[in-house]
Amino acid sequence: MVNFGIIFRVLGSLLVLEGIFMATCLPVSYYYDGYGFLPLLVSALFTFILGVITQIATRKVDKSLGKREGYIIVSLVWVIFSLFGALPFVVSGAIPSFTDAYFETMSGFTTTGASILNDIEAMPKGLLFWRSMTQWLGGMGIIVLSIAILPILGIGGMQLFAAEVPGPTPDKLHPRIKETAKRLWIIYLLFTIAETILLMFGGMGLFDAVNHSFTTMATGGYSTKQASIAAWDSTYIHYVITVFMFIAGTNFTLSYFAMHFKFAKVWQNEEFRYYLGFVVSFSILIAIVLSLFHDQSFDIAFRDSLFQVVSIMTTTGFVTADYLSWLPFVGVVMFMLMFFGGSAGSTGGGMKIVRVVMLLKNSVLELRRLVHPNAIIPVRLNKRAVPPTIVTNVLAFVVFYMLITTFSTIIMSMMGYELDTSVGAVAATLGNIGPGIGKVGPMDNFAHIPTFGKWFLSFLMLLGRLELFTVLILFSPSFWRK
Amino acid sequence: MVNFGIIFRVLGSLLVLEGIFMATCLPVSYYYDGYGFLPLLVSALFTFILGVITQIATRKVDKSLGKREGYIIVSLVWVIFSLFGALPFVVSGAIPSFTDAYFETMSGFTTTGASILNDIEAMPKGLLFWRSMTQWLGGMGIIVLSIAILPILGIGGMQLFAAEVPGPTPDKLHPRIKETAKRLWIIYLLFTIAETILLMFGGMGLFDAVNHSFTTMATGGYSTKQASIAAWDSTYIHYVITVFMFIAGTNFTLSYFAMHFKFAKVWQNEEFRYYLGFVVSFSILIAIVLSLFHDQSFDIAFRDSLFQVVSIMTTTGFVTADYLSWLPFVGVVMFMLMFFGGSAGSTGGGMKIVRVVMLLKNSVLELRRLVHPNAIIPVRLNKRAVPPTIVTNVLAFVVFYMLITTFSTIIMSMMGYELDTSVGAVAATLGNIGPGIGKVGPMDNFAHIPTFGKWFLSFLMLLGRLELFTVLILFSPSFWRK
Repeated sequence: MVNFGIIFRVLGSLLVLEGIFMATCLPVSYYYDGYGFLPLLVSALFTFILGVITQIATRKVDKSLGKREGYIIVSLVWVIFSLFGALPFVVSGAIPSFTDAYFETMSGFTTTGASILNDIEAMPKGLLFWRSMTQWLGGMGIIVLSIAILPILGIGGMQLFAAEVPGPTPDKLHPRIKETAKRLWIIYLLFTIAETILLMFGGMGLFDAVNHSFTTMATGGYSTKQASIAAWDSTYIHYVITVFMFIAGTNFTLSYFAMHFKFAKVWQNEEFRYYLGFVVSFSILIAIVLSLFHDQSFDIAFRDSLFQVVSIMTTTGFVTADYLSWLPFVGVVMFMLMFFGGSAGSTGGGMKIVRVVMLLKNSVLELRRLVHPNAIIPVRLNKRAVPPTIVTNVLAFVVFYMLITTFSTIIMSMMGYELDTSVGAVAATLGNIGPGIGKVGPMDNFAHIPTFGKWFLSFLMLLGRLELFTVLILFSPSFWRK
Repeated sequence: MVNFGIIFRVLGSLLVLEGIFMATCLPVSYYYDGYGFLPLLVSALFTFILGVITQIATRKVDKSLGKREGYIIVSLVWVIFSLFGALPFVVSGAIPSFTDAYFETMSGFTTTGASILNDIEAMPKGLLFWRSMTQWLGGMGIIVLSIAILPILGIGGMQLFAAEVPGPTPDKLHPRIKETAKRLWIIYLLFTIAETILLMFGGMGLFDAVNHSFTTMATGGYSTKQASIAAWDSTYIHYVITVFMFIAGTNFTLSYFAMHFKFAKVWQNEEFRYYLGFVVSFSILIAIVLSLFHDQSFDIAFRDSLFQVVSIMTTTGFVTADYLSWLPFVGVVMFMLMFFGGSAGSTGGGMKIVRVVMLLKNSVLELRRLVHPNAIIPVRLNKRAVPPTIVTNVLAFVVFYMLITTFSTIIMSMMGYELDTSVGAVAATLGNIGPGIGKVGPMDNFAHIPTFGKWFLSFLMLLGRLELFTVLILFSPSFWRK
């Protein structure tokens, strides 16, 4: 039997936390504006008190926590957080429709960044701050999840990426999840502070700087401006954000090493080298196209190209230029990059670079295996042979990703959207990116999606954020059998 | 060392055959029109004589034929046949550009059906007959290849489909490839004759009937009319062609059994049941959409829907209605079906239904494997467990197919095409379908593609037709090493 008591208890304790975090937006709201304060207060209190009640009600339950309970808790946390996190928006009337508010909050906690807001600047600043914070909290959640929890559950080859990274994995560096989480969160916090300071040096106000640092480190992409980062016509700001997006898309265990001056360990990580390689080569490629065919000077072309490549690949979704207005070739490349995603153990979404790399390697080796049918030719990562079961796991993950993309595209097309918008909306939400292509491109938003579509895309955000299997396993009958 | 002598010899002997087949178009040309005759004669003689010279020149070479020579011959046959098969079009001036002629002929021999002709009816009938015959010959080639040769080479899980089908495989029913080939070709011929007769009953003239039977059984899709099958406003003709397309998309060993009244064996084949299931369910689904949203009576809606679903799924590419003018949903579903393809051992292209089925099954099982990490849960096909290496083969094939689709789409987009046209052209050629989506949709053709694009798409046709690996292996350095 599934131990529902402990599930309630854990979720309740997290609700208490959510209430507290919501309350931290109160000073911001008080300082900047009037009408968001009371709704925030009510929502925070309601969430906090409900959490406390759950804690009291479940104080006598069996405390044993198994794998099954783990799957259920992880999937439900994001749903529950989004349900309660949507309250300030609904209560204040800033987002009147609950569907919209839920979409916006799920898009926050999953660090997606897809928005239904048509006039971001009109929102009370306290609510905007909460909106950015949902992403920042979601980023924190995903770091622990991908580095400490998913490897234990054995999802989509995550055990490999955690073990292969010679870093603070649960059984190697620190025996307890808590300790790992604490160390990585400190790094996360330090980067956020550093980015805030650097952005303020560039002339960005404190409020905007904090918000954008929150959503950069989470690879979330929520902005306080309707025009996103394009609102700042500052090369310095664009580059600062580019650098921090790149860091956020890097495995946080590598940042841990870098902070301890163990740069060799960073460079030894194959995923990181590919990540850097992809970013540099695609940026230069697109920059050349821009300067040749769009008459831009190379430095501006490179800045915009690099920014958009990093923004899409890390699945942040910030916008400084409309990549859909560039040559069709650029749009197609951008669309492809939406599937790459960030590094494993980063806050980035998508399929993850290490999986793409293993895919490419395995494909090349498949040809060699045909030539030598009796030889055993393993995929190598970080100079070690990857066990065949993990390769199969990764292949299955990628195939699943493609199948879900396909079927979801069909579902979106049922709402009357053409192929580009349908597949764009799916890729952008499943990959936790934000802007897609077609009518959900970087210059548009998701407001026009019908109600059912918004709930469906919210589900895709959850699915993508939790590496598919964490959620899908709950729909498998064998999961619920004894 | 690769034995190039025997490669030349085999290719030469096949050239002799091509010359002879080209010559069979001479009576047609003589009867129907004037100006195609001489070019056909010259081309046939040239091809024939060159083949004979090769035969004489290589009569003393080492006759040993290994796997490596097999790969090279198979890949080159289609290229050489297309080079020489293009001659009548170029010599006659009917297709002045050699690029166009090569594209058209490769599209023929690979049974793709993508055309660059803007006015098919203006072509001399002898040349049209040769055009249809390239598809018919290509279909013959692919039957032997997929049932008798590829399983020996061990490509993309083909060994499984050949062995699992309780049929005339090289080592089971008949020890020699020749015997298997002969039996299946007789079936192929019988179906072609049967369709011709049935089409003539529907009022189609002999010339059109033979041509369309050729290209139906090959799942090629070349028509003698610019409007394709839509040129005949006859429900009877539409249904006759639908039935034969369906048969052509079925494993020919199953047709062999059906002809020997062993229907139980046909039904026991799981791929066939899924094939039928997909066709029926998607046709009904789309028919409902058409009658609800396009105000069509259900019988016409079902006829058109069934025809287009079968035409796309079997990768024939005949057109009776413009599926791109239907709801976006239908276009997206059609696009997805382009990847399904026909059955293994049919003349259909695409990924093959059995692979799609194994993919879906493996995905569902992957969830069960997560729940029971220590249990061994194999994919089952035709009630037998599939060896894990074959499952990996199939997964690798599908991943390769997707990778090639992705990179090729990027290459097409470099020529200035938007995403839909780019990916449509790739899916339509790699899948050997013919019409795609966007600007290469069912109402358009490939004439507007730039020269480089035509050569590139021709290469994709070859790649798709030969199950990717047969061609790609030639680009692997380890293939050429001792």
